Amino acid sequence: MVTFGALEAGGTKMVMGILDENGSILERVSIPTQEPDITVPAMIAFFSGKTIQALGIGCFGPLDLNPVSPQFGSITATPKIAWRHIPIRTLFMDALHIPVAIDTDVNAAALAESRLGAAKGLNSCLYVTIGTGIGGGVIIGGKPVHGLVHPEVGHQLVTPHPQDPCPEGFCPYHKHCLEGLAAGPTFEKRYAMSAKDLPHTHIAWDIEADYIAQMCHNAIMSFSPEKIILGGGVMQQQFLLPLVREKTLMLLGQYIQHPHMENGLKDYIVSPDLGIHSGLMGSFLLAKEAGNL
Amino acid sequence: MVTFGALEAGGTKMVMGILDENGSILERVSIPTQEPDITVPAMIAFFSGKTIQALGIGCFGPLDLNPVSPQFGSITATPKIAWRHIPIRTLFMDALHIPVAIDTDVNAAALAESRLGAAKGLNSCLYVTIGTGIGGGVIIGGKPVHGLVHPEVGHQLVTPHPQDPCPEGFCPYHKHCLEGLAAGPTFEKRYAMSAKDLPHTHIAWDIEADYIAQMCHNAIMSFSPEKIILGGGVMQQQFLLPLVREKTLMLLGQYIQHPHMENGLKDYIVSPDLGIHSGLMGSFLLAKEAGNL
Repeated sequence: MVTFGALEAGGTKMVMGILDENGSILERVSIPTQEPDITVPAMIAFFSGKTIQALGIGCFGPLDLNPVSPQFGSITATPKIAWRHIPIRTLFMDALHIPVAIDTDVNAAALAESRLGAAKGLNSCLYVTIGTGIGGGVIIGGKPVHGLVHPEVGHQLVTPHPQDPCPEGFCPYHKHCLEGLAAGPTFEKRYAMSAKDLPHTHIAWDIEADYIAQMCHNAIMSFSPEKIILGGGVMQQQFLLPLVREKTLMLLGQYIQHPHMENGLKDYIVSPDLGIHSGLMGSFLLAKEAGNL
Repeated sequence: MVTFGALEAGGTKMVMGILDENGSILERVSIPTQEPDITVPAMIAFFSGKTIQALGIGCFGPLDLNPVSPQFGSITATPKIAWRHIPIRTLFMDALHIPVAIDTDVNAAALAESRLGAAKGLNSCLYVTIGTGIGGGVIIGGKPVHGLVHPEVGHQLVTPHPQDPCPEGFCPYHKHCLEGLAAGPTFEKRYAMSAKDLPHTHIAWDIEADYIAQMCHNAIMSFSPEKIILGGGVMQQQFLLPLVREKTLMLLGQYIQHPHMENGLKDYIVSPDLGIHSGLMGSFLLAKEAGNL
């Protein structure tokens, strides 16, 4: 049986999987993310014992994804100092002697949703996860988008809501960027209550939905994805998705004409289909492509 | 000799060209854009006499560019009422009996700059023209991006500048969208002086550069183009491009690490290479691809 390795490399945990060529998960192990000196050898030990054809990594970023760069496949300016400049792809290639593909965790998740999930059959989608941070992956022409670097959807600027008590937000890099205004921890910082404890009638949710809607609106105007998929902890508040749709429609102001608009964006701004598995499945898809080269 | 037809269909004029397969312009004619009843037959008469293999159209929008839609190749919600719902691609196909390709004027210009101009050799770019209106085309993976519809770069929302006397802008669809705040006519509306008469020390230019920089920043964060090309009448003020680079760098706040940053974005945010020919050359490239099908 042909098998592939998949690694969802996150800031708090590393999820490792072995999958068959159809994407069935044969084995799945999760370890906490500690210093690279400890965590990298542990991951290599896991994958070394397996007869995998290739490995796919969906990794927290930012990453150097320029294939002609000497640092291709390295982590770059992460706030996790110990992981900065770790050449994660090269470490696995040198240890395992198999093809290793890498992309951002969110591009991997976007790829999985686009091939197997909520955007199946479409050419393009935007996948955004709104949790401790905000990150997004973009698929166009069936492939994850890279360019100057790779999408950093959470750091786009949005316009502060007039009733936001902290309109500059909490990002150390940017004033009023999406992550600094709308990531999970901003609720606690503004209102001294965690998002899940704030009643859904609280103005905080109106503000949150407005920020996410601005992001959806600007995605539609700038690269026009065929579907927007919103996941992550904050989006688990069930009332939030309908509110985001409503506010996005308002912002669009009937400028875009499309059947999705008449439908209130119900089939356009949606939840992920693959749930917690999107990152691992995306890494598997990367592995499969690398193995077929 | 194999020749192709190219049409740059604009709101004020229609530029028609006959080009050989290497892109040399053999003939170029421009007529004013009047009502479709007058202008369409005139254009058909021009192209009917030629032995062209295919026609490419770069057209003002919005357009229906969904190939499976019955309205594929039609103009949709344009403010030019007489042109609304005109099936421009079908009209030429029925009259000329040759393959006819169509895209937005700005996607065509972006394609030309990406294949022959400022972004030659790159996989992706953003082309934005800032003039009477603001429009943009996006190339990713070497191809113009379509999706839900097509990019409408001018209608993305930006954050009003604190010193802007008209912070809501002048777009009938959206409050504080880029076009409503930064298109050429907004200078006249705010300061009762046209852009070209305002001294470059006037706060108006600081505000203008800030809006364009927000757009550049958000493009980098959302789909990370390998180059941003800024054209159009407003950008002909030579002091504006350096100001936009400076403000974009400030907004990025050293979050993105790339040699382009160290270079002050001089090779990243640039002027078009093809000047006034980008639209016609893009339409030619569309024709050539349609002719080779």
